[in-house]
Amino acid sequence: MGKQRDILKKLAGTFQIRHVLLRQAMAECLGTFILVMFGCGSVAQAVLSGGSHGSFLTVNFAFGFAATLGILVSGQISGGHLNPAVTFSLCLLGREPWRKFPLFFFFQTLGAFLGAAVVFGMYFDALWDISQGELIVVGNNATAGIFATYPSKHLSLVNGFFDQIIGTAALIVCILAIVDPRNNPVPPGLEPLTVGLVVLVIGLSMGFNSGYAVNPARDLGPRIFTALAGWGREVFTANSYWFFVPLCAPFVGAAVGVLIYQLLIGYHLEGEVQRKQKEEEERSKRSNMTTNEEA
Amino acid sequence: MGKQRDILKKLAGTFQIRHVLLRQAMAECLGTFILVMFGCGSVAQAVLSGGSHGSFLTVNFAFGFAATLGILVSGQISGGHLNPAVTFSLCLLGREPWRKFPLFFFFQTLGAFLGAAVVFGMYFDALWDISQGELIVVGNNATAGIFATYPSKHLSLVNGFFDQIIGTAALIVCILAIVDPRNNPVPPGLEPLTVGLVVLVIGLSMGFNSGYAVNPARDLGPRIFTALAGWGREVFTANSYWFFVPLCAPFVGAAVGVLIYQLLIGYHLEGEVQRKQKEEEERSKRSNMTTNEEA
Amino acid sequence: MGKQRDILKKLAGTFQIRHVLLRQAMAECLGTFILVMFGCGSVAQAVLSGGSHGSFLTVNFAFGFAATLGILVSGQISGGHLNPAVTFSLCLLGREPWRKFPLFFFFQTLGAFLGAAVVFGMYFDALWDISQGELIVVGNNATAGIFATYPSKHLSLVNGFFDQIIGTAALIVCILAIVDPRNNPVPPGLEPLTVGLVVLVIGLSMGFNSGYAVNPARDLGPRIFTALAGWGREVFTANSYWFFVPLCAPFVGAAVGVLIYQLLIGYHLEGEVQRKQKEEEERSKRSNMTTNEEA
Amino acid sequence: MGKQRDILKKLAGTFQIRHVLLRQAMAECLGTFILVMFGCGSVAQAVLSGGSHGSFLTVNFAFGFAATLGILVSGQISGGHLNPAVTFSLCLLGREPWRKFPLFFFFQTLGAFLGAAVVFGMYFDALWDISQGELIVVGNNATAGIFATYPSKHLSLVNGFFDQIIGTAALIVCILAIVDPRNNPVPPGLEPLTVGLVVLVIGLSMGFNSGYAVNPARDLGPRIFTALAGWGREVFTANSYWFFVPLCAPFVGAAVGVLIYQLLIGYHLEGEVQRKQKEEEERSKRSNMTTNEEA
Repeated sequence: MGKQRDILKKLAGTFQIRHVLLRQAMAECLGTFILVMFGCGSVAQAVLSGGSHGSFLTVNFAFGFAATLGILVSGQISGGHLNPAVTFSLCLLGREPWRKFPLFFFFQTLGAFLGAAVVFGMYFDALWDISQGELIVVGNNATAGIFATYPSKHLSLVNGFFDQIIGTAALIVCILAIVDPRNNPVPPGLEPLTVGLVVLVIGLSMGFNSGYAVNPARDLGPRIFTALAGWGREVFTANSYWFFVPLCAPFVGAAVGVLIYQLLIGYHLEGEVQRKQKEEEERSKRSNMTTNEEA
Repeated sequence: MGKQRDILKKLAGTFQIRHVLLRQAMAECLGTFILVMFGCGSVAQAVLSGGSHGSFLTVNFAFGFAATLGILVSGQISGGHLNPAVTFSLCLLGREPWRKFPLFFFFQTLGAFLGAAVVFGMYFDALWDISQGELIVVGNNATAGIFATYPSKHLSLVNGFFDQIIGTAALIVCILAIVDPRNNPVPPGLEPLTVGLVVLVIGLSMGFNSGYAVNPARDLGPRIFTALAGWGREVFTANSYWFFVPLCAPFVGAAVGVLIYQLLIGYHLEGEVQRKQKEEEERSKRSNMTTNEEA
Repeated sequence: MGKQRDILKKLAGTFQIRHVLLRQAMAECLGTFILVMFGCGSVAQAVLSGGSHGSFLTVNFAFGFAATLGILVSGQISGGHLNPAVTFSLCLLGREPWRKFPLFFFFQTLGAFLGAAVVFGMYFDALWDISQGELIVVGNNATAGIFATYPSKHLSLVNGFFDQIIGTAALIVCILAIVDPRNNPVPPGLEPLTVGLVVLVIGLSMGFNSGYAVNPARDLGPRIFTALAGWGREVFTANSYWFFVPLCAPFVGAAVGVLIYQLLIGYHLEGEVQRKQKEEEERSKRSNMTTNEEA
Repeated sequence: MGKQRDILKKLAGTFQIRHVLLRQAMAECLGTFILVMFGCGSVAQAVLSGGSHGSFLTVNFAFGFAATLGILVSGQISGGHLNPAVTFSLCLLGREPWRKFPLFFFFQTLGAFLGAAVVFGMYFDALWDISQGELIVVGNNATAGIFATYPSKHLSLVNGFFDQIIGTAALIVCILAIVDPRNNPVPPGLEPLTVGLVVLVIGLSMGFNSGYAVNPARDLGPRIFTALAGWGREVFTANSYWFFVPLCAPFVGAAVGVLIYQLLIGYHLEGEVQRKQKEEEERSKRSNMTTNEEA
């Protein structure tokens, strides 16, 4: 036991990464990996089983609680964004430095890529069984939708763009309310579960148009994986370059969400705090003056 | 970074609303907006996808957790009523001043109106696809039910009125138990989730008759929106002026709920607290008398 | 406002029940009322809508969270048993006096009776619509199963008795773990939610045989109501006097559950506490002796 | 009352097990019993009712919350592993002594065996009704899958092995994050619920291949039971000795999970703590030196 403990301590010393930012980036990578492995895994289960082992509801639950688990695992180290749009909002608000944004974006996308790879490996036999040797992006037996999002038939690009903006804005408004230090709605430690609920609700009500990516990394990583794994470049060109929408619209949505939250809630709570600080300062000044005069 | 922070602080100062009541009204507006956007969005998803992306169960989940999120976002500022019937109950109990009632009612309805508008925009293509250019209130391919509630075929007006009274009374009894300062059932910070569970359960067991509005604002706002957006005045006249039921019955239900909770639970807990206070007062009086006598 | 407050205070004084036991009984009545109103309401919704607005899963969720809400509302005053089998277990363990048992049993059954009455009223039109004027206990279009439980075709009386014993024993083992003062698994205030999960899980895995009553009051109250409301005495005689099983087996199950929990968990935690107390006593004795000797 | 209390105290003294390890083993036995009774019970309900009273989603919920309840009941005494792969991981990390591993493995398997026996008894009539007197392992009306896991048709042994490794690794990564003393994501007391969510998510996204055993005891115990209860030795030989996969792969997965968590999260948090300790030690040394010099 003593020897095992020594070995374990030595390992901890050897493998510990001292660079804080890299450590955070790796935590983001693992968190997004978990999000996509469970999330896209549930899509795979629903699609490949032909509905017997899953449905859109199970996908909603899986993505919601996968977000919860991803945040739980990485939160202590990196904050558990798992989504470049979330990192972007926090940078906009000055709560995270801008240099984190490209780094987190890259590692989140990498995590999503690896998550898609694991889903591919885990359901390799089932994928081969249903696709009969041909990996198709659009049409019957299309399996690319397991990994990245594609629009429904009825959806125009404009409406799709609007859909992703609304979805991400809703996500950001709720997340900002949950993590706002001046707003105290959630018991400490339950933030991951509550964010999971947000993702669940978005899936329940905004998922029909194009599968609620609302996360550029979650969409881009698996899309790149499918391009490499055999589905080909059609994953990018399909539906008139649809991939552009879940890549860009979420950032617009994040800005809209930040604006709505700040204008309707955030500024008032901040102002309240500042007003109280000012009052206290003035009071302490006045009491100082009094004591001075008395002196 | 420093510059960004300065800009952000200035913005906070500029946009902060100093009028407390207006601030609260806007928080109610945003909260009800979130409730209706997610709630009616899930109905839209279930109806427009023909059941492939949703069912009555997903609508129940969405409305429940949408209530949770709406309360989370607005709770710190306005208390997160999101429902004129809730505001009405709290006024009845003397916990909120009556002048808040019309103001909250208006802003809650406004938020619901805007939420319906966003759902309309988000599912614009899908709506056009399924309705084939005609927005219908009653009959096959009817889409008005996405926004406001309409009775099932079997339902008479009297039974519908009773249904809304029971539903709202149940909602109010549970909410009063959750927020009662003398009753301590829920850990602080979990009230929004618990209220969401109440809404979920009401949907699971009282939703078949007419879709469990139990909230005049949630029903009226979207109904006005549909009247303006192309469904026409039939949304008010349909089913022998059904719109009147979810507008009025919830207030009756709120009064019934307050009565039941107070008679069976509330008064006893209050009385218990008052009894203890009196005992303490008497004890301190007696000890005063003793010390006086001793003196 | 001042006047309203005065009136409210006076009301609190007038209607407060000073008899503690009666107050607790009324809280049990309201709690079981909520359990049955939501629970049987969800069965009604599933049955009367022909599956479009509910399924066995929604019934499971509704009964689980209905238990949560019933306990939330009544817990502060009476402990929130809502089930004579739970009261029975706590009496067996000496945590509640035996004279509470018949009183709680009666008021729980009364609450369940009233809950069934509200469901009957709320779905009156739908009930009439589907039953075409005839309230049937067994066979096609049977609606008695909305209120009380009846066995599946495959079930023998012996297996049904065993089913109810197992279900109630599982319920009691989990509840005892949740409320055991020496076992500390659930954060304070989350007991109602956790008990709701227990009821949910029992429904998910032990509901196929006869609908998991595991609660004599929840079954007897609605059964009496149906006997009076038009289904007739067949509700008692059907399936070779089945009503006897959910009335009696839960008490046997409660005893079994108490036994299992105490033998495998409870006694060891209790013993641990007693051992520590003894050690401390001895230590304090010894130190007393030492000080005496020193003196 | 006094007499009852005396009897109860005496019983506690008599039946208390003083051997700590045995006590823990029995708690593990009860916890795994609860896991399998509820979990396999829900499979039985779904299979035997032909889908009317359950589906794969209800099985996922049941297994998830069954894990929660099993951990709740046994956690205080034994930690609530309920899974030899979890015990194995904790031994690997030096948090549990290795001698616990075989003991827990045996008692967990015993608990799973007994849980399967209760499910068999509870659904005896239904089982006989559907299987028409013949208990079949593979093919139509196969009922062995209620108890142990069997692979889908599409699954090769290699992919199945990989599937179990991935599933268990995901489970272990999440559990380590939840219980890591240096990572603080979950409020104390909510660990059981969170682990339940992990099991739920694994079921939602990794259940299609072979039913996500990810637990050697949960699979082996019921499999032995079915072999004895009438299904015969085919439960071991079927699908080219499939039983070997859920028995062995989870341990490989547990090692992989430990490795991933430690490399990406654990070592950094540990190192952080050690660094702070060192700094403090040095500071206290220096301050000692200063005081010495000063002296």
